Amino acid sequence: MTESWATFGADLHLDLSAGRGLRAGLAEALREAARSGRLAAGTRLPSSRSLAADLGIARNTVAEAYAELVAEGWLTARQGSGTRVAERARPRRAAAAVRVSGGPRPPRRGPAYSLLPGSPDLSGFPRAAWLSAARRALTDAPNEAFGYGPDGRGRPELREALTGYLARARGVYADPERIVLCAGFAHGLTLLARVLRARRVREMAVEGYGLDIHRNLLTGAGLRTRPLGVDGDGARTGELTGGVGAVLLTPAHQFPTGAALTPARRAAAVDWARTTGGLILEDDYDGEFRYDRQPVGALQGLDPDRVVYLGTASKSLAPGLRMGWMVVPPGLLDGVLAAKGVSDRTSSALDQLTLAEFITSGAYDRHVRGMRLRYRRRRDELVAAVGDRVGISGIAAGLHAVLDLPGGTERSVLQSAAWQDLAVQGLAWFRHPEAALPPRDALVVGYGTPSDSAWTPTLAALAAALP
Amino acid sequence: MTESWATFGADLHLDLSAGRGLRAGLAEALREAARSGRLAAGTRLPSSRSLAADLGIARNTVAEAYAELVAEGWLTARQGSGTRVAERARPRRAAAAVRVSGGPRPPRRGPAYSLLPGSPDLSGFPRAAWLSAARRALTDAPNEAFGYGPDGRGRPELREALTGYLARARGVYADPERIVLCAGFAHGLTLLARVLRARRVREMAVEGYGLDIHRNLLTGAGLRTRPLGVDGDGARTGELTGGVGAVLLTPAHQFPTGAALTPARRAAAVDWARTTGGLILEDDYDGEFRYDRQPVGALQGLDPDRVVYLGTASKSLAPGLRMGWMVVPPGLLDGVLAAKGVSDRTSSALDQLTLAEFITSGAYDRHVRGMRLRYRRRRDELVAAVGDRVGISGIAAGLHAVLDLPGGTERSVLQSAAWQDLAVQGLAWFRHPEAALPPRDALVVGYGTPSDSAWTPTLAALAAALP
Repeated sequence: MTESWATFGADLHLDLSAGRGLRAGLAEALREAARSGRLAAGTRLPSSRSLAADLGIARNTVAEAYAELVAEGWLTARQGSGTRVAERARPRRAAAAVRVSGGPRPPRRGPAYSLLPGSPDLSGFPRAAWLSAARRALTDAPNEAFGYGPDGRGRPELREALTGYLARARGVYADPERIVLCAGFAHGLTLLARVLRARRVREMAVEGYGLDIHRNLLTGAGLRTRPLGVDGDGARTGELTGGVGAVLLTPAHQFPTGAALTPARRAAAVDWARTTGGLILEDDYDGEFRYDRQPVGALQGLDPDRVVYLGTASKSLAPGLRMGWMVVPPGLLDGVLAAKGVSDRTSSALDQLTLAEFITSGAYDRHVRGMRLRYRRRRDELVAAVGDRVGISGIAAGLHAVLDLPGGTERSVLQSAAWQDLAVQGLAWFRHPEAALPPRDALVVGYGTPSDSAWTPTLAALAAALP
Repeated sequence: MTESWATFGADLHLDLSAGRGLRAGLAEALREAARSGRLAAGTRLPSSRSLAADLGIARNTVAEAYAELVAEGWLTARQGSGTRVAERARPRRAAAAVRVSGGPRPPRRGPAYSLLPGSPDLSGFPRAAWLSAARRALTDAPNEAFGYGPDGRGRPELREALTGYLARARGVYADPERIVLCAGFAHGLTLLARVLRARRVREMAVEGYGLDIHRNLLTGAGLRTRPLGVDGDGARTGELTGGVGAVLLTPAHQFPTGAALTPARRAAAVDWARTTGGLILEDDYDGEFRYDRQPVGALQGLDPDRVVYLGTASKSLAPGLRMGWMVVPPGLLDGVLAAKGVSDRTSSALDQLTLAEFITSGAYDRHVRGMRLRYRRRRDELVAAVGDRVGISGIAAGLHAVLDLPGGTERSVLQSAAWQDLAVQGLAWFRHPEAALPPRDALVVGYGTPSDSAWTPTLAALAAALP
């Protein structure tokens, strides 16, 4: 067995020269040898004296490494039988080479161009301004800001900043005490779904066109979703009945058709909520980006007792921040905080402080203004490029538009987009499976998604794909 | 009604002078007036021409503000009946003055001194080093890092950095593909509890002494918890049976008694897991902080197929980061990612990138080394201050120690600590309600919690409270 020790020693020596401490390096090498099976279970190790001599290191170093591995269970040391590799050190891992489904995947090249909706232009993230807000925020933060925090609602600095911003920019009737920070819209919706279920709500209305991930999230929480009709005035809130306990709406800019919910439809929603005790969840995902018409304020202001306002930094700044906020009616606050619970304090206090500073310093407004110009210019270029070939709607606001296609051509246009190496979604994708909507062939074009440098070729790919 | 318009106009004028745009300011003032009831529902507004003259602004500005509020549902405009405050604008909020339980609370001064365990010294957060890592990370980040991210596991940069760090510092057998980032230990435990329930596990073993929030979290997920005995060798893993599907352990430093799980107990746990197909959840909450003895590596290395390793930045850096990580056995990865789902991508990509840079640049090691010295000094001072009066254990590692008290005195010592304005917890607090543990009166002293400047008076308060 001496030769194997020699090899072993050489291996160890290689490891030991890698700059770690001697003992730590030796211990790791021994651990790896036992783990990999190179040192079989039951194998007796050389005495610390002889291994130390082999390796030219102090005997004590070897003895300490052995003791460490005995403490960890890799080795056993028994009087009279020396130090051996423990039985349970035998490798039992499902070999690392086995491909785990859902696990490591071979790198896949995505399409060259993307107009998938739902993302802002990530190249527009204001890195320098964000860092300088972070510097100011971290420098000023009290020590307790780095702790667990006493409050499931999140940092008071950000709740305070949002209260002012939301009142000013979105007409939201907020109050720092009723703002609950969350990790984006989907997280907020998950919490609200739990609250609704706890209140024995079983059915909830959603817009006939919307995101399947939101519907699935509600279904997963045990809520059946009932689709409302959607037309040029937004969701048909007059269809709301006492049979549903809540409704999810996108009043400022229906997703994805792009309509603003009309005053009459807003009134109908609030009347329904007051009459039935139902709750309105207002998804104000891109309310900041309105171009032509006057700003459309949030529905929430009409009845802050019946409307939960949900906002997010995912469109205005970046989804990677995982930062959203809810303005919660007083009667719902306890339930939301209970649903949030101890395990769910989610977003980083550092980012919360940074965003608070970003808003109060005016950097948020500046950023939104700059991005609004960028998106508006793209929207105008989109209209100029394809507006004479297809009808374009939903363009008064937001980061996407709907391009109406001749009846029955949606699939073939999607196919021809794929040939152009362009990722884009058809309107059918957003349809609730039970929705009684008139047939409509259209593309949902997320013109906010490309980076500035990719925009022109992406637009050209779209133009080439259209009939 | 003219006089009320005059007043109204004056109010508006005050608002208009506050530096906002004229139209926005006017719209907000009108909105607020309707919301507060100052403008009653049904009230007819002056014509845009006459209000414009009153306010000395352009008529068009007034008309636009009116149109905005009509679009939002605050006002109604009907041919021949003019512009009126809408019926549903009537304030229906449960007045803001009503105190919401769980909502706004009067500020309460906490105790002057705290030795509650579970928090690092927040004054030690390395603000400057963190900011400079953030600057490097954000400058280098690819644009896609600001997006939703393709992967529920989290940013690859951090998973890569952790793989190296955990192998080196904790003897964890990791692989970036099997690391799942989460928002701290409790979040990881919540995800794992869901996976266990989905696998029809109903009962799970926990240590007889531990955190009730973890037990409650498991119970809340539908898992019944069964306590193991705990003694000077750590949890009595020999008590594990086939009746439980998983066990939650703190092998490096039992929480809160402070024992390191012995090799025999580690072996017993792994043998149990292999024999029964059970899963070990290893909570390595403060493994970085070991003082006297040789480092005790993670149990996970003994069988990466049967052990989920959970680590966190909450003790080594700050709980406010909400940053934790799991090293997940291959067979469990799909389940964990499914439990994480779309709504649960939690922690900020920016913080993930920053932590990755913080680790790879060596700043993390430097910080941990510095804090280790700080905590070790405190531990020594604690022993020097009270070691002759009470037995102290669990001090080889971590941020807390256990001070044994004469039988039957725990409550009275807690009371006398309260008189010293000192927050501290008794060992009884950590006891599983069903645990068959011998009686033990003790304090759990979180000496990591105070800031450096508070440490000396806090220690004095403790000394004064002891019998």
